Amino acid sequence: MFERIPKEGPTFTKWFDNILEKAELYDYGRYPVKGCGIWLPYGFKMRQLVLNFMRNLLNTSSHEEILMPLLIPEDLLSKEKEHIEGFRGEVYWVTKGGDENLDVKLALRPTSETVISLYESFWLKSYKQLPRKYYQIASIFRYETKATRPMIRVREVTTFKEAHTVHESYKDAERQVLEAINIYRKFFDELGIPYIISKRPDWDKFAGALYTIAFDTVMPDGRTLQIGTVHNLGQNFTKVFEVRIQLADETIDYAWQTSYGISERVIAALVSVHGDDLGLILPPKFAPIQVIIIPIPAKELWDKILEMTRKVCNELRSHGIRADVDDRIEFSPGYKFYDWELKGVPLRIEIGSKEVKTGTVTLADRLERKRKQIAVDNIVKQVKVELEKIEEKIKERAKEWFKAKRFRARNISEAQKMLKKIKGIVELPWCGKEECGYKFEEILEAKVLGSPLPTLEEVKVENLKCPICGDKALTIVRLAKQY
Amino acid sequence: MFERIPKEGPTFTKWFDNILEKAELYDYGRYPVKGCGIWLPYGFKMRQLVLNFMRNLLNTSSHEEILMPLLIPEDLLSKEKEHIEGFRGEVYWVTKGGDENLDVKLALRPTSETVISLYESFWLKSYKQLPRKYYQIASIFRYETKATRPMIRVREVTTFKEAHTVHESYKDAERQVLEAINIYRKFFDELGIPYIISKRPDWDKFAGALYTIAFDTVMPDGRTLQIGTVHNLGQNFTKVFEVRIQLADETIDYAWQTSYGISERVIAALVSVHGDDLGLILPPKFAPIQVIIIPIPAKELWDKILEMTRKVCNELRSHGIRADVDDRIEFSPGYKFYDWELKGVPLRIEIGSKEVKTGTVTLADRLERKRKQIAVDNIVKQVKVELEKIEEKIKERAKEWFKAKRFRARNISEAQKMLKKIKGIVELPWCGKEECGYKFEEILEAKVLGSPLPTLEEVKVENLKCPICGDKALTIVRLAKQY
Repeated sequence: MFERIPKEGPTFTKWFDNILEKAELYDYGRYPVKGCGIWLPYGFKMRQLVLNFMRNLLNTSSHEEILMPLLIPEDLLSKEKEHIEGFRGEVYWVTKGGDENLDVKLALRPTSETVISLYESFWLKSYKQLPRKYYQIASIFRYETKATRPMIRVREVTTFKEAHTVHESYKDAERQVLEAINIYRKFFDELGIPYIISKRPDWDKFAGALYTIAFDTVMPDGRTLQIGTVHNLGQNFTKVFEVRIQLADETIDYAWQTSYGISERVIAALVSVHGDDLGLILPPKFAPIQVIIIPIPAKELWDKILEMTRKVCNELRSHGIRADVDDRIEFSPGYKFYDWELKGVPLRIEIGSKEVKTGTVTLADRLERKRKQIAVDNIVKQVKVELEKIEEKIKERAKEWFKAKRFRARNISEAQKMLKKIKGIVELPWCGKEECGYKFEEILEAKVLGSPLPTLEEVKVENLKCPICGDKALTIVRLAKQY
Repeated sequence: MFERIPKEGPTFTKWFDNILEKAELYDYGRYPVKGCGIWLPYGFKMRQLVLNFMRNLLNTSSHEEILMPLLIPEDLLSKEKEHIEGFRGEVYWVTKGGDENLDVKLALRPTSETVISLYESFWLKSYKQLPRKYYQIASIFRYETKATRPMIRVREVTTFKEAHTVHESYKDAERQVLEAINIYRKFFDELGIPYIISKRPDWDKFAGALYTIAFDTVMPDGRTLQIGTVHNLGQNFTKVFEVRIQLADETIDYAWQTSYGISERVIAALVSVHGDDLGLILPPKFAPIQVIIIPIPAKELWDKILEMTRKVCNELRSHGIRADVDDRIEFSPGYKFYDWELKGVPLRIEIGSKEVKTGTVTLADRLERKRKQIAVDNIVKQVKVELEKIEEKIKERAKEWFKAKRFRARNISEAQKMLKKIKGIVELPWCGKEECGYKFEEILEAKVLGSPLPTLEEVKVENLKCPICGDKALTIVRLAKQY
């Protein structure tokens, strides 16, 4: 039986592991390789809905889907020096084929900047071919030495969407960074996952990038989760991979690149942000089943009840609603209610002899768990209205919750108090110096997420001082306990 | 410029490599790891259309999509003895993580029978849960020591669709083998890829299976290509992985399994079977672009020409036809014709000043390369009719060609002559003994594909003798030069 565990607070990780298993999303922890799991049918469908939405956003903004090799020879991965330094410690190496030792060690890709840059050096010759925007959705591997967590910190990241773009100037690459940010905003907004966008501090940028912009959300225990990153790569990779482009003025220059990625952490956030102690609550757009119809056993009219459930199901399906009937005879209605609540199905319809007699159905929503009778004649319209309402409410609720998890402190002791009490993200004035950044981390026992992007948010720091060194504050620094 | 290479006969592999590159399907041979390539945007779209059709066939026959871990620990892969013996020579091994040596070597999955069997031992307890049918689409790896060929013999098989099913009895598993065969038939029929279904000889079955059924097609050089396999695994894996099931009579028994797979060889066959010396010819259902519209430059009416191309494109799209306009100004119409013919787009529409004046468009089909005028008013209907016609003709043509590549010989010398002259698949009477099978291979310098399935085909061998030993023939043996 399902163990009811409070989602918020210190029991969150236990809640999370339990939900993944009980809602049959992802089987983790039983496989003999640490940090690897299996997507179960229900979880796979949810993942597919999320990915298809992402594909749609990318395809309609001129991104082209490709699929690159998984194996990267050591010398290829090592060409860009900062890049390999950043990844060296967490690369898996293939050293044998059959019984033979390989001449060259092969890395399981930790990311594909090196591979795409090699190909770009073959493909791209002229500014006329630019911009080009590629992406792939595939597995990447990280030999994590930290404690692994399902979907959140895994060794096989099975759902890595990485985009790679090429441009003729720095300015164009900058524009692309903004386009990527806007795509991710739309993506997370639609998922109802609240976020904060920060420019990561220099010491925490992607290995090989000029700078990194990150999306962070807050999990139910108050820790932040990085759910998306956008990198301006400058010419760092194009120089070592010789991606040289003829420009409009006929001079030759190295091309400019960006890259941006998301992973199954998005699914982890979707699960965690919206769920409650009873299980998942899925936004209808990403629910594999939007309406579950349950026939209520009765001594009389059983045939009619079954007939009506099927009719309602077909009616809803024919209008594009993902409906299903649960007619398993071995389980009671109560068990079924509980099972589909656990799986986060937004709407439940009950049909019994009362409903058959009165030409109504009983409609229950997952979010507020309220029931009401509605006329069966009007069912499609009513269901659509209810699904929209639920979606709105889910998003609104998540936004409200997130708002309360983000706060501004005037000084260190206030920040300490709030981090302890409210958890979440604290913001402080900052002079911008790296050494003060480290001090913040040390004193607050938290990680620097970075600073707001002035192009996206207005940062008011006049008359404020960095609480570490006392110098004039130039920006805001954000800190949180991080996953 | 495109080098025109004859598709049929000994130049086929050159034609194939050239097409993959020039039609921008798959970039192969430039990557520093042998046997690995990259799917380019156009090829990726084609692959997606093929995979989505397969998904549809599987989902509508109660198969559930999942995603399993790529890394398999050595002891897990080695549990079923025949299985590991068959794969040992071609497994890639991960032995290092960062700078550390791993305690246990990890294989890159060559296939996933061992992984799914482990999970099935966790998940499945009762016959009430059966049958279960899982599948995944993912990369598998084979350290091929033979010469690699793009899509045909690669080290990273990027498009492996593997299905795994579980049953309560041998009979149910047998039924599943037939269901799988029927699914693959529908699949290849729709792709217009002709095939022959054979039961592989015992010495060539899947490592760990009771027996293997294979689909083979014939490539333009006369060699056969295995494009799909279906295995009855019996209880070989369930016994070593302890997949024990309570049956209806309350006894406990090991479950029964089947597995079946296809790979990107399907795409290789799609390209090779239908193409001609000028490039690809795609069945409309699997063409990323079904209709390409090309505005023909003119001194007068240029604006109207462009307007009409866009209008026609939108009209077609609004009726679900994948249409596109090629309005690149840097290329001549002639170059564009040639480019889209190379890419196999089934229909081309030309719109110039003549067309604007007369309210017509010029329609050209890729298969017969004939042009005709049609009224623009009726364009959607006309295009749909033409697409259907092309599809029919492509399939018919492939069938006819294949028929001529398969022949029955009465004796060895006839078989030798025909294999030399016509190439393709030769059939001979066979006593069924393994030693005679090997003799056939030796004498004919060809591989035994196997024998027909009596349940699918009537095999008439009365009064026939095995040409090797002179014993009574019990079946037919098929031989061919194989990829």
